[in-house]
Amino acid sequence: MDTLTDFIDRNRERILEELKSFLRIPSISTTPAHAADCRKAAQWVADHLAALGCRQIELLGSDTHPVVWAEGPKRDGRPTVLVYGHYDVQPPDPLELWESPPFEPTERNGDLVARGATDDKGQVFAIVKAFEAVSSNGEPPVNVRFLIEGQEESGSMVLFDLLEREPHRVEADAVLVSDMPYFAPGWPSVETGLRGLCYAEIEVRTLKSDLHSGLYGGVAPNAHETLVHLLARLKSPDGRINIPGLYQAVKRPSKKELEGWKKLPFNERKYLREEVGAKALTGLKGYSPLERTWALPTFEIHGIAGGFTAEGAKTVIPAVATAKVSLRLVPNQRYRTVQRQLAAAVKRLAPKYATVTVRFVHGADPVLVDTSAKPFELIDRAFREVEGRGVVFTRSGGSIPIVPALGKRRAPVILAGIGLPDDRLHAPNEKINLNQFWKGIRVFGRFFELMGTELHRSR
Amino acid sequence: MDTLTDFIDRNRERILEELKSFLRIPSISTTPAHAADCRKAAQWVADHLAALGCRQIELLGSDTHPVVWAEGPKRDGRPTVLVYGHYDVQPPDPLELWESPPFEPTERNGDLVARGATDDKGQVFAIVKAFEAVSSNGEPPVNVRFLIEGQEESGSMVLFDLLEREPHRVEADAVLVSDMPYFAPGWPSVETGLRGLCYAEIEVRTLKSDLHSGLYGGVAPNAHETLVHLLARLKSPDGRINIPGLYQAVKRPSKKELEGWKKLPFNERKYLREEVGAKALTGLKGYSPLERTWALPTFEIHGIAGGFTAEGAKTVIPAVATAKVSLRLVPNQRYRTVQRQLAAAVKRLAPKYATVTVRFVHGADPVLVDTSAKPFELIDRAFREVEGRGVVFTRSGGSIPIVPALGKRRAPVILAGIGLPDDRLHAPNEKINLNQFWKGIRVFGRFFELMGTELHRSR
Repeated sequence: MDTLTDFIDRNRERILEELKSFLRIPSISTTPAHAADCRKAAQWVADHLAALGCRQIELLGSDTHPVVWAEGPKRDGRPTVLVYGHYDVQPPDPLELWESPPFEPTERNGDLVARGATDDKGQVFAIVKAFEAVSSNGEPPVNVRFLIEGQEESGSMVLFDLLEREPHRVEADAVLVSDMPYFAPGWPSVETGLRGLCYAEIEVRTLKSDLHSGLYGGVAPNAHETLVHLLARLKSPDGRINIPGLYQAVKRPSKKELEGWKKLPFNERKYLREEVGAKALTGLKGYSPLERTWALPTFEIHGIAGGFTAEGAKTVIPAVATAKVSLRLVPNQRYRTVQRQLAAAVKRLAPKYATVTVRFVHGADPVLVDTSAKPFELIDRAFREVEGRGVVFTRSGGSIPIVPALGKRRAPVILAGIGLPDDRLHAPNEKINLNQFWKGIRVFGRFFELMGTELHRSR
Repeated sequence: MDTLTDFIDRNRERILEELKSFLRIPSISTTPAHAADCRKAAQWVADHLAALGCRQIELLGSDTHPVVWAEGPKRDGRPTVLVYGHYDVQPPDPLELWESPPFEPTERNGDLVARGATDDKGQVFAIVKAFEAVSSNGEPPVNVRFLIEGQEESGSMVLFDLLEREPHRVEADAVLVSDMPYFAPGWPSVETGLRGLCYAEIEVRTLKSDLHSGLYGGVAPNAHETLVHLLARLKSPDGRINIPGLYQAVKRPSKKELEGWKKLPFNERKYLREEVGAKALTGLKGYSPLERTWALPTFEIHGIAGGFTAEGAKTVIPAVATAKVSLRLVPNQRYRTVQRQLAAAVKRLAPKYATVTVRFVHGADPVLVDTSAKPFELIDRAFREVEGRGVVFTRSGGSIPIVPALGKRRAPVILAGIGLPDDRLHAPNEKINLNQFWKGIRVFGRFFELMGTELHRSR
């Protein structure tokens, strides 16, 4: 039995309890009411890393959503791995669909169910435990630095500011990020692309105040109706986004990349039925599902506020309607450009009788990773040893806004997660498969070891 | 000084205090939590009518929202007037926009401000006080019967059931309803039409559960997007409702009625600015604003539930979206027919990948009143004497679901309110103008007197 397996066997119960106490903190960064919980989660991470022998521990940039910085024992002459992750989580709504309370981690069928279980507390915690495993004699094989933020789900502003002021923080021989799933069970992957994000609120106002729909129905402009027509024109039923200029910067994947995707174990019927859970897939015709989710922009409506939505029947003409929407962006789109394009398109579609405003909430540029550096070979070896299969190169349709900034000092950014595709991140009953979690500790531990033995480069 | 003016002068303070205590009861019928308050308001009305010499007092059909029935002193050989009104009120939301508490009646600038002040407690109470004024010697000029319900704002189910079982309750020589405004200050009106209502919830389901918009954006059908396209197709931006067959039953107002409407004191710019509060009026081209609100059907979206609408930014593809919508109907549409037409239209527009259901919440048929009977002449005379101007024949875009049932035994239903157009019914700071209230007592008192002297018909 290797040291890593041995470490896990000896500490399994303790590690699980630690993860559960991390998951119990409702560190929802998108909701101001949970600011204190975010602070608490940050402190929990800092205390935990201190107990593992880290030094230089700092809570940086914010009182409520600080970035946790910590450095492992100094190993002169050894390479440096920067670990990025986040302790904040998505809101748990809709609460009524959870089978157990979102912040009361519950073991079920080999899974640990809780908000944040896979995104990202469980995954970043696997790296922390890997660090613990390879540091047991006080001398980890590499210099490890932790950069664990608390705003990944809400724009990473604190971390962006920090890295703007202190760009040296991302100097490393590799950046390791575990905040994504395998391509499929048994198929670990390294992600070579992430989509960007342009999140916005489109508000339509048509009246000074809500009116009685009997007395004024027929003459008073209805804010919801106006918004509905505007949204219907922003995206056609065939999936095409009608924002002038939007598709111009879209770069198609290389022929080689597309060929690689064709070889992946992807069963569209199974994907539709078991993962998406719909009667049919939708989207732009002429592109495969992987290309539609990885390499094409999207426009989604997340919700529409205003008017009357409570129980019962109220006959009101709403004065204000607000849609939360977002676009996912692909290389080489830039979110600032897309913001301008969206604002212009909305302005063009807004009828004269309405006041239409667009507020931009947050944004992220897309990412395209060059995988030629040595650390990619090493993560592949680590997975090959633990999982019995090396990594496939895939992309993700999701966004991690900070990733472009993590690669700014030319450290290769390795996006290698241990989640599974059915982890229900951002949804009710989010979970991490515990077998994946234990394998993750071994993979990341092996990666640290391999970096120490195979990549002798001092900084 | 006539007897009615004298009665008011001698009892002004007492009457105002009585109205205030009626308004203090938060008898909100749409909210189950206020059931006991509804019962309390019913008892208040019953006790009050008993004190005025009524007999046969009954609370009918429901423990929580009973119909109050009462009969005045029997006058053999005299005609019978049935008074309909309601003691229930709309919810006061949004509370923060009230300048004084909704259930603490407050006098301000000649108005009495409270939820229910005009709709309908203040108006029905003016009729009650008129009855008191003309009964002071114990012998009112007519037989008066009261039918005061507690569910007008929530579908009138108890009263519908009662009148189904006991149709004789509406046998009368005239039904008097005061639950509407003058056409304009100084312009009393009799309403000859009410619109009907077809309230529905349209639910679209596209996924088993909400999905991450990054991972699945591009392939997963978005319930809000599907609903938005469906709603956009149900009503064109030009105001036309695209429900096959919907306009077939619409009967245009007679030439004479339309000519009458043209003579009404209606200033479109003032209406737009002061009453509607919009940049422009919308709706079907080629019809006047009065025709659009009184004689054409409408389709309004009241709100859209589902997805994420809380503060912050959640990137979710919603699995379910539900729109609360309603149509207002005009003669000779029937709400049961329109329900079928709407359900068929939605079914036709629903894409194959979505499960779309329509739930009907409540409905009401439109009303068209024949004003040729003698009591219409008498209410005109009453207003002419008190107000110095007779009534104009108008319609209302609103609905009073029970009205068709009140006219089932051929009693002429007189819809003659004493509110003003700016009474803010269903909205914050609802009020009744006190001058209108005092005039109302005189008008309804005169109407009772005239019915007694001019219409000798025994039942």
